[in-house]
Amino acid sequence: MNIFSIKQLLTGTHLLQEVVISGWVKTYRSNRFIALNDGSTIDNIQCVVDFEKFDESLLKQITTGAAIKVSGTLVESQGKGQNVEIQVANLVVHGGADPETYPIQPKKHSLEFLREKAHLRIRTNTFSAVMRVRSALSFAIHQYFQQNGFYYVNTPIITGSDAEGAGEMFRVTTLDDKNPPLTKDGEVDYSKDFFGKETNLTVSGQLEAETFAMGLGKVYTFGPTFRAENSNTSRHLSEFWMIEPEMAFYDLDANMDLAEDFIKSIISYVLKNCGKDLSFLEKRLLEEEKSKPQAERSGMPLMEKLRFVVDNNFKRVSYTEAIEILRDSKPNKKKKFQYTIEEWGADLQSEHERFLVEKHFKCPVILFDYPAKIKAFYMRLNEDGKTVRAMDILFPGIGEIVGGSQREERLEVLRDKIKALDIDEKELWWYLDLRKFGTAVHSGFGLGFERLVLFATGMGNIRDVIPFPRTPQNAEF
Amino acid sequence: MNIFSIKQLLTGTHLLQEVVISGWVKTYRSNRFIALNDGSTIDNIQCVVDFEKFDESLLKQITTGAAIKVSGTLVESQGKGQNVEIQVANLVVHGGADPETYPIQPKKHSLEFLREKAHLRIRTNTFSAVMRVRSALSFAIHQYFQQNGFYYVNTPIITGSDAEGAGEMFRVTTLDDKNPPLTKDGEVDYSKDFFGKETNLTVSGQLEAETFAMGLGKVYTFGPTFRAENSNTSRHLSEFWMIEPEMAFYDLDANMDLAEDFIKSIISYVLKNCGKDLSFLEKRLLEEEKSKPQAERSGMPLMEKLRFVVDNNFKRVSYTEAIEILRDSKPNKKKKFQYTIEEWGADLQSEHERFLVEKHFKCPVILFDYPAKIKAFYMRLNEDGKTVRAMDILFPGIGEIVGGSQREERLEVLRDKIKALDIDEKELWWYLDLRKFGTAVHSGFGLGFERLVLFATGMGNIRDVIPFPRTPQNAEF
Repeated sequence: MNIFSIKQLLTGTHLLQEVVISGWVKTYRSNRFIALNDGSTIDNIQCVVDFEKFDESLLKQITTGAAIKVSGTLVESQGKGQNVEIQVANLVVHGGADPETYPIQPKKHSLEFLREKAHLRIRTNTFSAVMRVRSALSFAIHQYFQQNGFYYVNTPIITGSDAEGAGEMFRVTTLDDKNPPLTKDGEVDYSKDFFGKETNLTVSGQLEAETFAMGLGKVYTFGPTFRAENSNTSRHLSEFWMIEPEMAFYDLDANMDLAEDFIKSIISYVLKNCGKDLSFLEKRLLEEEKSKPQAERSGMPLMEKLRFVVDNNFKRVSYTEAIEILRDSKPNKKKKFQYTIEEWGADLQSEHERFLVEKHFKCPVILFDYPAKIKAFYMRLNEDGKTVRAMDILFPGIGEIVGGSQREERLEVLRDKIKALDIDEKELWWYLDLRKFGTAVHSGFGLGFERLVLFATGMGNIRDVIPFPRTPQNAEF
Repeated sequence: MNIFSIKQLLTGTHLLQEVVISGWVKTYRSNRFIALNDGSTIDNIQCVVDFEKFDESLLKQITTGAAIKVSGTLVESQGKGQNVEIQVANLVVHGGADPETYPIQPKKHSLEFLREKAHLRIRTNTFSAVMRVRSALSFAIHQYFQQNGFYYVNTPIITGSDAEGAGEMFRVTTLDDKNPPLTKDGEVDYSKDFFGKETNLTVSGQLEAETFAMGLGKVYTFGPTFRAENSNTSRHLSEFWMIEPEMAFYDLDANMDLAEDFIKSIISYVLKNCGKDLSFLEKRLLEEEKSKPQAERSGMPLMEKLRFVVDNNFKRVSYTEAIEILRDSKPNKKKKFQYTIEEWGADLQSEHERFLVEKHFKCPVILFDYPAKIKAFYMRLNEDGKTVRAMDILFPGIGEIVGGSQREERLEVLRDKIKALDIDEKELWWYLDLRKFGTAVHSGFGLGFERLVLFATGMGNIRDVIPFPRTPQNAEF
């Protein structure tokens, strides 16, 4: 007798075989039909019990959430809703689930309620579907890069460099929490800390990834990054996963080509491999949006939206063009934007990005050549002296999903920018070395993984697409 | 004209085509032959320059480490050492590398010296080979699990749970470093910290992975973990990557079967896909070991050692048998062990593990059924009441590479163990919930990724198989 997963039984050709399967009871009805799920797929397998053959005390333990093992014959189903079912010959209860106390009963639970039960929510259809899609997306990302000549690099999580500049950082320390050692000047003496210096959690692996790109050619990171910002929004996490490819000899155009091809490829992968989960999530979203005003609905059903991204070119627009479009737009003229766009140089807000993507172009948009003043120091200055070779990819419903740039490869220009920002050059000695020795045009971008999962699953809150979300005031589990 | 990688040019069929290639100069000899590398492979491509056609000032910039772009025709090579070479028509210097200051000159550098230059060491043959193998191993791991019905899960890095118990932890905080807020009792008031509680960097994702296994069936983590221990050895890092599969309905035997099949599969993958890098690393190791006393040499050439692991069954031995073997062994009787094995219950030291693997069995060994007292609280107690269903996999030269167990699925037994260890049950409320609701036999293991890379590459120090190592007193870059 072979041990199968439910996915294998439902997709394979095991008719009339004797099978053994373990899983958790979703429902048990008419004292006869058990819907059993083992997480391998969103579909349950129907297990048919001849109740006269089993002890009543045993059958009483078959409640929602109980873990059981059944063995029996896989046969064609007589009923509707499934092709095959198991005629149960033997049944063992691994562990029951008291209906009085088990929180995940077969009814609709709010996402907020389930967040409090993050250790059990994986047993719901919604979360198991989201997490299977998340897993598939992860693999699609690794596969894409590995098949395209990129090497995976694990940049450090604990960083002694405080010049990354992408946001507020968490301190990492083993010093006495109440009475840390002090220097003569009365400051905390980090030379006595674990690493002999002040250390923080990384906000980006980019600078370190650049060192590797300048030797291996094409590399990518895929790891956790951190922001100690007090942002309690549906799009921000204090701990999130980021993908950061970095390529020697790529200019901004090659960078944009790569980013677009990459996103299309991984979305194609889940369309191909996660049909059942996406179909469930699409229905969930339609249901949820029924209660929303028309303007807040996403317009396209989930899978249509994903196929739209795969099938259409992303619109490439310079920042300068975008400002003109925004300045002339109805909401700008009618003062409907919270921040009116008045002149070149303005930082784009989420409302502007959404207008461009959702109202004006109605497709993913790549904005490029931003004003130097609103972008990071390491981005390559254009010949005009005022814009940098930056690009952001904006997605409908999500906003910025990718931020990237061609990097400043010229030592003197980079030095001037570092100086202008009052960053101590010594902090970046190794980063500057890359420009001293064998420097070359190179580029890269960062993709926030959870935002991608949000987009691919149609979920509305980023807390619901990561197993155990970390946000201000929340590090439960 | 197409843009290729050197790997494509050397393995593909582009003879007599016009090609463009960028890379870094390895050597330039006879004013004629440039050995160029772009990181895509360990092999260089020979670029042949007719020096009379180029400016002397241009040719002067072609020094080791300089980044250049060449275009020309790919032709069969007349010389030895390569099949093809580029007849250079055009040459552009992206960026030079002053021979007076560029540290990575074409001569032998010590690994210690290169650790100080961790931002440039990727440009050496040894490190680029190691990092390509590391990347391939990462992908092999993802591919193995995804093809075998596992889902990838990202367990939290910042943890509010202090009951993982696997080692000393790093504190994560945004409180004022000098004058943290205090409670009435004069303790640091973590309710005012970013997450509203004391938080640390995770030492293991296992407990959270278990919550997912009890819904998705088979899951795995692959992420960074941390130990704030003051261990300055060639096998310990403060920040390292770990793989932790966790499977519902797997007992210890199934767990051992999986671990063995998994390790063999990923080693096979690199043997198949990293031949050139492994061959280079094998030669490097042979060279290095020439200067070592016979007893410290690894005995088998690198690839033979890898094939040995793939081709042979791991020897499965109970802890009790192992103790008997050790007690009766020559080094034990002759007091050659630092810690003499006297009775059942002794914790095995590295010297004992190495004796079993390298001298006694001469193959990878899986030890199982350890005394409960020397293992973690969550391991399943055997019927004998004194051993637990734990297993460690021991590798030659490396020692413990995998540690795993069947998990205690019985609520009352687990509660008693937690109580005996004085852990507050409230800390583990969610972990205990897994035993209240639909509990079942389940198992998992942890594999230290860098130890695997050490083994696969034949490197001797764990600091040399991770891009930017974190160890006590060191968080540079």
